[in-house]
Amino acid sequence: MSDLLPGPVEVVGAGLIGTSIALACRRAGIDVLLSDTSPEHLRTASGLGAGHPKLPGDVAALVVVAVPPDHLGEAIEAALDAAGEDTVVTDVGSVKAAPLAAVAGHRALSRYVGSHPMAGSERSGPLAASADLFSGRPWAITAHAGAAATAVRRVATLVEICGAVPVMLTPAEHDKAVARTSHVPHLLASLVAGTLAGAAPEHLALTGQGVRDVTRVAGGDPALYSQIIGGNSEAVAVLLREVRDRLDLALDAVADGDRAGLESLLAHGLAGTRAIPGKHGGPMQAVAAVHVAVPDHPGELARLFADVGASGVNIEDVRIDHDPGRPVGLVELDVAESRAEELLAALESRGWVTHR
Amino acid sequence: MSDLLPGPVEVVGAGLIGTSIALACRRAGIDVLLSDTSPEHLRTASGLGAGHPKLPGDVAALVVVAVPPDHLGEAIEAALDAAGEDTVVTDVGSVKAAPLAAVAGHRALSRYVGSHPMAGSERSGPLAASADLFSGRPWAITAHAGAAATAVRRVATLVEICGAVPVMLTPAEHDKAVARTSHVPHLLASLVAGTLAGAAPEHLALTGQGVRDVTRVAGGDPALYSQIIGGNSEAVAVLLREVRDRLDLALDAVADGDRAGLESLLAHGLAGTRAIPGKHGGPMQAVAAVHVAVPDHPGELARLFADVGASGVNIEDVRIDHDPGRPVGLVELDVAESRAEELLAALESRGWVTHR
Repeated sequence: MSDLLPGPVEVVGAGLIGTSIALACRRAGIDVLLSDTSPEHLRTASGLGAGHPKLPGDVAALVVVAVPPDHLGEAIEAALDAAGEDTVVTDVGSVKAAPLAAVAGHRALSRYVGSHPMAGSERSGPLAASADLFSGRPWAITAHAGAAATAVRRVATLVEICGAVPVMLTPAEHDKAVARTSHVPHLLASLVAGTLAGAAPEHLALTGQGVRDVTRVAGGDPALYSQIIGGNSEAVAVLLREVRDRLDLALDAVADGDRAGLESLLAHGLAGTRAIPGKHGGPMQAVAAVHVAVPDHPGELARLFADVGASGVNIEDVRIDHDPGRPVGLVELDVAESRAEELLAALESRGWVTHR
Repeated sequence: MSDLLPGPVEVVGAGLIGTSIALACRRAGIDVLLSDTSPEHLRTASGLGAGHPKLPGDVAALVVVAVPPDHLGEAIEAALDAAGEDTVVTDVGSVKAAPLAAVAGHRALSRYVGSHPMAGSERSGPLAASADLFSGRPWAITAHAGAAATAVRRVATLVEICGAVPVMLTPAEHDKAVARTSHVPHLLASLVAGTLAGAAPEHLALTGQGVRDVTRVAGGDPALYSQIIGGNSEAVAVLLREVRDRLDLALDAVADGDRAGLESLLAHGLAGTRAIPGKHGGPMQAVAAVHVAVPDHPGELARLFADVGASGVNIEDVRIDHDPGRPVGLVELDVAESRAEELLAALESRGWVTHR
């Protein structure tokens, strides 16, 4: 790897993502130069062992621009302006066409290759950073047509060093992809969540796990997501219009009592859930849910998972349903359909109250 | 309890919900009479110990109508027609105004009290039933203005016997509540999921946990949910129009580059997520997410939860993120914000790879 990425790596913006990349590079033995407009972030990231502040005259093999969405274009341009002959510049912004357009005419454009790691956290800032943040996550590499092959390889090496899975897409394809898999779902989740604001408490008493799942992402920072979604306005608007048209169809079907039309829309949604790649990138396997009542205090989940482990049945997913009004949690264990009966029998023989 | 619900209880429709209610009643020592148009369901439910088939001349203290949404009205009417002088009739349908309207003129209307347990399963039929299905779940009781107090008390006793938490609402309020907390979220989740159907696989490679959560409920049976949502068309249509209007605002904000407008819509959604009642019905407490990398084979989750249990920190929620492309799961543990550092330290000292 050191041949492909000799170092040093310069990280511009020592927030959550930038500092996590810096930590992963340091773990791989690569020198890291840090810069940030906040002296506090810079001190914190340095103190965490993520690298040392960049000094005048330092030249990096790879500059990673990790600044907020609205400042990406100018920061990439500044990095290209200051770059050495052999320096490659990437960024980790959530949208890719807009920052590329901002530097389209730059003399060193061939040495810019955008990228986007699909990882984050509810927290921000260098203190939340981790060298493992990207472990196993998709990381889009969005080379433009004029990008140098060596530049693309250097960015791919960074992705590898961070333990992420590279996904090669053009900038325009990337933006369409995240509009579909992230930005439009986020907006719709926000609209659903918005219908709960100000609702009567006795109505909200009927809230179940379903709407909690639908609205979870709407808990993200509005200022950040308005930058992200607003920065991908073209792709988002196209898809949002499609959703609006289908919402009008749904509204007509509901208002007209058109059950067949309603069922057809719901069936289209069901097909969509089946298009989502499954665990380890493979197709979704048929899973069955096993529900277990678990007393709500420390140690009980450990006892449950010890018994699950002893059964030899692997857990595909797990969910804790918070039962309003009583100190018992309902844990949903998703397992391969073919193993569900075995798990049920194993847990019941150990005294757990279960049902499918 | 036996004074308020002397038995026998008659369950009409021995599916998942009906058989689960029957099992809970049997556990409480109450006689149960079963009926179902499917002789197979009747045999299965009887075989599970849920009761015995109703014979001509049997008279129940409480009839529980648990048939599919589209047959509720006629089944409730038939139960009222056949009922004895002291028999109370309830149903467990997902909508409440329509079945009430179907029997509005009945001579025995005062002895009908609708209800709706907020519980279910991906599976259906008596084999999936469990006496614990309703444990800790909200169960709406929707008495109409003319309902007899003794009838309401008898239904509330059933809810108590099933271990559920009664929520008293008028039928119209109930239908508005579930439109908001269930039906509209389901429809919107379906519309989001629909945008994934037929999408390019390389775009879907960027799918993260967010859109999986948003679309999970869209995996439900379209035929069943078109009955449920279609049966609550009035309340759903009102709310869906609100969502459509806000979607138009979002579309304008995106298309016009109106970041402030977009941020305001997202902030409204954030406020909505905070309106959702928290664990045990209390207000949401501030939780922090702790992420742990876990090898994907049996026993590892047990080891993790044993170490979590030893830390003494209670887990509010847990989620397994399926990392495409590598055999490591990322487990997200949600804990009280004040305990997160303690849990991180405890897990790291036991060799787990963690980050917040």
